[in-house]
Amino acid sequence: MSSDAATDIMDGTHSALRTHGYAELTMQDIADEAGLSKAALHYHFDCKHDLLLAFLDRLLARFRERISDVGGDDAADRLLSLVETVLLPPTDGEPHEFRTALLEIEAQAPYDEAYRSRLERFDEVLTEEVRSILEDGVAEGTFCDDVDPAEAASFVVTYVRGARTENVAVGTALGDSLEAFRGYVERALLAPAATSVTDGGDADDGAGDEVDGE
Amino acid sequence: MSSDAATDIMDGTHSALRTHGYAELTMQDIADEAGLSKAALHYHFDCKHDLLLAFLDRLLARFRERISDVGGDDAADRLLSLVETVLLPPTDGEPHEFRTALLEIEAQAPYDEAYRSRLERFDEVLTEEVRSILEDGVAEGTFCDDVDPAEAASFVVTYVRGARTENVAVGTALGDSLEAFRGYVERALLAPAATSVTDGGDADDGAGDEVDGE
Repeated sequence: MSSDAATDIMDGTHSALRTHGYAELTMQDIADEAGLSKAALHYHFDCKHDLLLAFLDRLLARFRERISDVGGDDAADRLLSLVETVLLPPTDGEPHEFRTALLEIEAQAPYDEAYRSRLERFDEVLTEEVRSILEDGVAEGTFCDDVDPAEAASFVVTYVRGARTENVAVGTALGDSLEAFRGYVERALLAPAATSVTDGGDADDGAGDEVDGE
Repeated sequence: MSSDAATDIMDGTHSALRTHGYAELTMQDIADEAGLSKAALHYHFDCKHDLLLAFLDRLLARFRERISDVGGDDAADRLLSLVETVLLPPTDGEPHEFRTALLEIEAQAPYDEAYRSRLERFDEVLTEEVRSILEDGVAEGTFCDDVDPAEAASFVVTYVRGARTENVAVGTALGDSLEAFRGYVERALLAPAATSVTDGGDADDGAGDEVDGE
């Protein structure tokens, strides 16, 4: 299909998921949001399920892009930026309604191998990125040298998922979950010599002065 | 209603959720599982929604009971037992299908204030129990004295929710999430003097010998 039609359909799916949620979503809703006829939509996708798989693939490609270029002075900064990017996307691309629709899809995953394999890819991509930052942090001395990057990466990814689910289910602010995560980084990961990631000033030996140093 | 009928209906709801999931669940399914006629079921509950709210209330009462009597030699043991109880209930009362149904309900919570208020109660009850154990642990010296019990309790509850969601969405074993949690307790909470909660033997000053000491 033309890339214009593809973009319209994917943007339409995004809007339709926000407006109608996952369970109630129809091909007509998506066609309406995409500014296409239902016949035109069916020309590209047989059914809602195929369309949503293509949508998840696009979402994954964007997710991968978004998390691959987080910056930061050191590994602790980069880890916090990464988690902030996942919890609080910089653009308005992921309002509450959209996270809710994604959670509905997660709840369908046990019944749907194609959904599940996509969701696994999201986790793999994020886990790999976190693990790589943790490895760098151990190597550069920002994180304690007894941090196990693989184990800690799984832990972090599980926490991030919890924060997103909690935000949908009971409305906990994602900013609060991010703050609590900052506390975890300080308590569980930062090497004693590294400067605090919250106030940048209470290092006990001054060795961590790259952090928040500008 | 008689307590027998109540028990039959609640047990039937539990079975029906496991078998049919939340979205597809009908009053007929619940009646079948409860061994009642649909008319008898409707005598007690107007609709599936009212019945599910009563079911969540019963679930909350049992959850409260289950988490209130976890044992352990010290606060670290109790915290690990508590999280184990939530992630891996001792009885077979919560198979994967049931957790999936609960996640479906969580994904409905933004659209349903009555569901949401029940889910909030689960979180409050668990957060309060974790906070109380953390306070005890700080007071008795098992946990570092700069652990903030309220902040750490929120963090733990978020993590537990993440582990449950992840188990449903991508199949991560709950036992693995529990192991990673044990690592968190050691790295982020345990006072340096306390014995390791995993092997009970590497304390550097021997002051924590109550842990796993029998």
